[in-house]
Order: sequence, then C-alpha cells, then structure tokens
Amino acid sequence: MKRSIFIASLLALALPATAQQALGPGTGLVSPEINPDNSVTFRYHNPKAKTVKVTGDFLPTTPIEVEFGGRTLVYDAPGHADLVEGPGGVWTYTSAPLDGELYSYSFIVDGKKVPDPSNVHQNRDVASWTNIFTLSAKQGDKGWYYEVHDVPHGSVAHVWYDSPTLSSQRRMTIYTPPGYEGGTQRYPVLYLLHGSGGDEDAWTDLGRTAQIMDNLIAEGKAKPMIVVMPNGVWFNKAAPGAAVNNFQPTMANSRSQSTIEIEDSFPDVMNFVEKNYRVVKGYSNTAVAGLSMGGRQSCMLSLHYPDKFGYVGLFSGVAAVEGNEQGFAKVFAYEPKLYWIACGKADGIMAGSKALKEWCDFQGFPVTLYESEGGHIWRNWREYLTIFAQKLFQEKPQKQQPVRRMSSNINIDD
Amino acid sequence: MKRSIFIASLLALALPATAQQALGPGTGLVSPEINPDNSVTFRYHNPKAKTVKVTGDFLPTTPIEVEFGGRTLVYDAPGHADLVEGPGGVWTYTSAPLDGELYSYSFIVDGKKVPDPSNVHQNRDVASWTNIFTLSAKQGDKGWYYEVHDVPHGSVAHVWYDSPTLSSQRRMTIYTPPGYEGGTQRYPVLYLLHGSGGDEDAWTDLGRTAQIMDNLIAEGKAKPMIVVMPNGVWFNKAAPGAAVNNFQPTMANSRSQSTIEIEDSFPDVMNFVEKNYRVVKGYSNTAVAGLSMGGRQSCMLSLHYPDKFGYVGLFSGVAAVEGNEQGFAKVFAYEPKLYWIACGKADGIMAGSKALKEWCDFQGFPVTLYESEGGHIWRNWREYLTIFAQKLFQEKPQKQQPVRRMSSNINIDD
Repeated sequence: MKRSIFIASLLALALPATAQQALGPGTGLVSPEINPDNSVTFRYHNPKAKTVKVTGDFLPTTPIEVEFGGRTLVYDAPGHADLVEGPGGVWTYTSAPLDGELYSYSFIVDGKKVPDPSNVHQNRDVASWTNIFTLSAKQGDKGWYYEVHDVPHGSVAHVWYDSPTLSSQRRMTIYTPPGYEGGTQRYPVLYLLHGSGGDEDAWTDLGRTAQIMDNLIAEGKAKPMIVVMPNGVWFNKAAPGAAVNNFQPTMANSRSQSTIEIEDSFPDVMNFVEKNYRVVKGYSNTAVAGLSMGGRQSCMLSLHYPDKFGYVGLFSGVAAVEGNEQGFAKVFAYEPKLYWIACGKADGIMAGSKALKEWCDFQGFPVTLYESEGGHIWRNWREYLTIFAQKLFQEKPQKQQPVRRMSSNINIDD
Repeated sequence: MKRSIFIASLLALALPATAQQALGPGTGLVSPEINPDNSVTFRYHNPKAKTVKVTGDFLPTTPIEVEFGGRTLVYDAPGHADLVEGPGGVWTYTSAPLDGELYSYSFIVDGKKVPDPSNVHQNRDVASWTNIFTLSAKQGDKGWYYEVHDVPHGSVAHVWYDSPTLSSQRRMTIYTPPGYEGGTQRYPVLYLLHGSGGDEDAWTDLGRTAQIMDNLIAEGKAKPMIVVMPNGVWFNKAAPGAAVNNFQPTMANSRSQSTIEIEDSFPDVMNFVEKNYRVVKGYSNTAVAGLSMGGRQSCMLSLHYPDKFGYVGLFSGVAAVEGNEQGFAKVFAYEPKLYWIACGKADGIMAGSKALKEWCDFQGFPVTLYESEGGHIWRNWREYLTIFAQKLFQEKPQKQQPVRRMSSNINIDD
C-alpha cells in the first residue's frame, strides 16, 4: 500500500503530462472535504503564497448586470473567502453548512485563479474551467438529483447528423434512458437547447442531464424519455475542438442570425432523431426547452411549429410578445399540455418573462411562470430541468387538432 | 465587436464559476500559437511572478524508471523551459519547430504547476490535468490523424451495460463509424483496452480514437469498424465521477485481480455489443488490443479465448511466456490474421515484449514486434493505434478451424 502510494506520488510529481499512470494529484490533501454537518473544508498547500482565497458559488453572491444582445442579464458573481495558513504551508477554509447542490469553485493565489490540485473534477463553462463538487444534503433535495446514485443509468452519445439546411454535418448529444439498448420500447423526446455561449455538451456537463434523468426515472417521478441536445449555434458544428477550426469557443448573439437559423434547420434535427431512434412521435410526445438563448429558441420553435411541441419550457429566455401575438394565439390553439416559463427573480430576463406571462393570462392562454431566486446561472437551469422533466408526458396522448378560442381580437387563421 | 469582447472579458473576470456566458479566458493572449515554421509560442501574463517555466512533452524528455506491479516501466518525463518576461508582465517562450503530434504541457509559476489560462483545452490523465494542442505538420503525419478534419465523423457513446459476472452495471465507450446511424451495414469490432490508471474514456480523450478512426476511414486506410472501449478495472464501474463513490481515480495492479476478472467478465462485454450493435461476428472480424495493463489483458484474452480474436494488438503490455506455452500454441493454431506487439525502445516492457517475440519466432508462430522510440507514454499508444487500425479486417473471412503446427514439443491438445 505504501509502495503504491509512493509510486503514485512520484508519478504525479514527475510526470504530469505524458504518463499514463499519473495517479493522484500527489498533494496528500483531501480537498474539498464534505463534513458531517454539510460544511465543506478546502485545503491548499503553498508555503510561498501570500494570500489564498476561494471563490465559488457556495459563498454569498453579488448580482452583476450585463448588457448582452440588447438585453440585461443578471449574473450572480460568486463570492470570495480567505483561506488561513496553517502548519506546513497548508491553507484551509471551512464553509458554513451548505444545501444540497452542485457547486463550482476555484482558488485565487496571490491574485491568480488556479484550480484545486487535490480535486480532479473540473467543468468547462464556455472557456472557463472551475472545480466542482456535488453535495447531497438528503435524498430528494436538489443536489441529490445531480449526483450519481446506484440506479439504472441511461447512455449519453455524441452523434453527428446531416443537416441539409445548413449543408454540413453537425453534432448533437443524446441521452437515452436505462434499458434503451437491447429494448424495444419507444420513448417520447425532449429537445433541450443550450445558451449562446454553450454547445451540445453543456446540458450534460454543466446541466447534469443524465444524472437528473436517471434519478427522476428511478424514482418514478419522470417518464423514461430521450433527451436530444443539439448544437444550437448555426455557425458552429460542434463543441470547441470537436469540429474543424473551432478550437476556441465562440458565442452567438441570440437576437441575430442564430434564432432565425434554428427554426429553419430544426427539422433536420427532428428528422434524424425520429428516423434513427425509437421515439414516439407527435405533439403529445414531443417537448422543447432551453436556457437563455435556447429558451428564446424554444419559444420561437413553438411559434414556428405550433403543432409540433406539446410541452414547452422557457428557462431564462423568451421571445417578445410584440409581433408574435398571432403566433402565440396559434400555439395555444393547439392546447399545449404545458407552456412553462422559469426565471430567476434577479435576472433581467424576468421582465420579458412576466410580460409574456401577463399577456397570456389576459388572453386566457394557460402559461405557468416559475420564479426562482438568483440570476442567469446554471444552478437555476439544473433546477428548472429537474422540475420541468417531472411534468412531461404524464398525460395520455390526445388529438392534435387546433381548438378555436374566443380570446381577444386575435385571428388565428392565416 | 468591441462590445462583445468587453462583455466576454468582464464575464470571464467576474464570473468564472457560475455564469453561462463566461466566454474567453479574458487574458487577451494567444497561447499556444503555432507559427508558420511549426514552432510554438507560449504566453502567460503575470507581472508578479518570479519564474515561469513550461513543462511539456514537446521538450526533450528524460526517461524515469518506475517499479509497478513487479515490472519496470519507463516513462519519458517531460522537459522544462524558461519563459522570459517582457513588457506588461507577459512571459513568452518559443519552441523549436515541432513534428506533427498531440502535445501536452503546463506552466510552472514560482514552482507551482498551473494551467495555461489562454488555452481552454485540457485532458485528464488519471488524476492530472494538462493543456493540450495538436500540430499537423503535413497531411498524413501523426499529428494530422489526431486532429479534426472535414471528413465524415463517427459517433462516440458512453453506454451502460449489464455484467452478470460482476453483478453490476458497467460503462463502456463505443465509437461507431460515419453513417452508422440510419444505416444497415454491419461492421467488424475492435475491443480496445486502457491501462491500469485509465478508464473507459481514456482511449477517446487521450488516445484520440475517434479522430484517428475518422481520418483513416476517410482516407480508405482503415476499414469502417466499431471500436469498443470498456472499463477494464474490475472494481471500477465507470470513469471517476460517473459511478457511485468513485469520485477519485483508482488504479489497478495489472498482475493481481483485474486481469483475472477481465477474462471472466469479458463475454458480458461481447454479448452486449453483439446483441445491440450491427456487428459482423466471428474470428476474422473481431480484434482485441490494449495498452499497458490493457495489452496484458488483450494477451490473456487471446489465451483464454483463442478462437475469438483474429487480430491481437499488445501495446506496451504482454503476458509472460512461462506457464502460457500451451496457451500460445493454441492461439497460433487458429492462425490469427495478426498478432502484433508494439513497445517503446526505452520502455521496461520491451524485455518481455522481445521475450514473447523471440519465443514465438522459435516456435514458428508469426508475431510482429514494432519497436518505437520512447517509453511508456500516450504518444506511443496513439501511434500504435494508428498503425494497428490500418492492418485490421483487410482480409476476406476464412474458416475458423484450428490448424496443427509441428512446432517444438508443445502439445496443443487439452
């Protein structure tokens, strides 16, 4: 045992880049350590450092307003805390007891952000890497759904499909539920769209889609379903590094090209999925949802194809009512099973979300607005997915004929 | 344009952990930059640093001997070079012109290893993260095969399967060739095994399996095939973080439990693949290969199931001749299409590789030994896969009956 530890340490110190056997960070420290009271201790070794801080979303956050694409988005900037130096140059900080959640953090050593060398788990958010840990305060809390449990697991595939509309191969990530391989059952489909800085890996890497779906399905709280996460930026084909000449992340402006394009090219996505996967087709078995730009895209897709999506989820992203009045009337003429808006109370997108909700209320169109705490952040989007997924495909399929409503002065005929 | 850059920078600085829009490292630097002569410039901003070095496998390496599992493995420890501080606290270093390759590197700032904040691309090797870049000196060189080109792309799926032998769900990664989805063709299968510190993601993340196969298939140099990369450590179910309670990487000792287990449980892998994927079954259409522990496992699998694998690749890992003489005689009685050993000249595994080769030569068993430069490193394993994949499934299927050879005194009857 000692020998293997020695070897691991030696390898880790000597061979960070090329060795296959580079086991263990070799720090000899446990960080982060989740304590019995759900506080978390961070440790970092550096006898030469003058200051060591931890920045993370488990600390009190500060809202920051950012103008982007003509909208005001409010992010919750993570807080900072000081680590204190102890014997041997080991710096430590212990948080307050935390709620169950997936948390992100980094160290800041003498003013420079560095990863925690004792924690191998990192997530890439667009172009930033941060360490992560999940904390499950108790079964059934939010963090519990983001962790891996000993339940049947679905599969996650990175699949290339042909998009004739965009004249290219493009990539999507597909979650198939436990038992899909080797089974014969057909499943309903949730199309789940990322934000303007994201890609087809965002919902699985940052959004914990596979864990959320596995756990909800195991508990019987969500129907087994296929979740399709296509790359939604028209000028990207795939996540950074996965396609030619896209080594650096690029960001879409959701108000310009990309939202137009996704409506044009989205049938390519659905055709591929419906042809190659065991799906139950049709309005009552098809959902679309997305975050930020993907929320607005989901809204536009529902307007463009009002007979396609029986369930619509708009997470921190909506289309404007103005100019879309007739479109929304058509959407609701089909009587969607669920038209669900979710937004953080601190998010600048809340104004547009409320405007859509209020207009729909006035028209008699049944829309739900879920108001969470916080801003334009992944913590909210994971929660929205957890809630939304439980509401999907719970009804028996019904006829898909549009229903005339006597609401306001909107003419739903073409 | 200026505005979006400003926003990106602001977000990157303020919101490393939680923001969805954290585009760009915000360093304003390009690093690494590949120059027209294939030299590479590294840049790092830190006015307070006293020393900044780069360590990476593009620099002259130093062989280090490590005892592991009773064997001597020789790793090529990456070299170091000093960055020089220039105006504004920007440190730079430019390498010599480099051959095409995938390279790994990190910075060392005042003695502490840190990632390059200007390069979002990192690979995890067991428990160490390093930045990576690929350099394509010219079409067809090694580095070219590791890069993404505008060719048809296969898919990569992370799939859970049931292992009755190990009484658990376990995970494998599966590459399916371009056109698999929606096609009807059946494909031969390469089972590709990782090393003792690796997992089912190692061959795709570090080994560039998908890029190598896409590029070789596009050039017509490899047959379209399915590549199955199961987790080969019996006490792990999946990569770190993907299964319950396996948050930290754990390492197998290839001489003890794990090699026994893989022979027992491997039929579970093959049964799953043959049941659920469009494969051509049988000896002439089935290959097994692996690196280090996975090489030894491949050797043991060929001994245990001599009628299953028409192609065998042992990359920096073999089983001992002693005690397996009759087993090897049985293996070659089936006349494998290819029994291919590859090892670095500096690797301690070379002794065992040569011993097997020489014994087989003496017996008249056709074995190829490919000797590369260097040690026990991923650079070699990527190259071995590139070479090995081109040799697979090129012949027409033949009968699978064992053939008696009049070689030495080995009795191949039970």
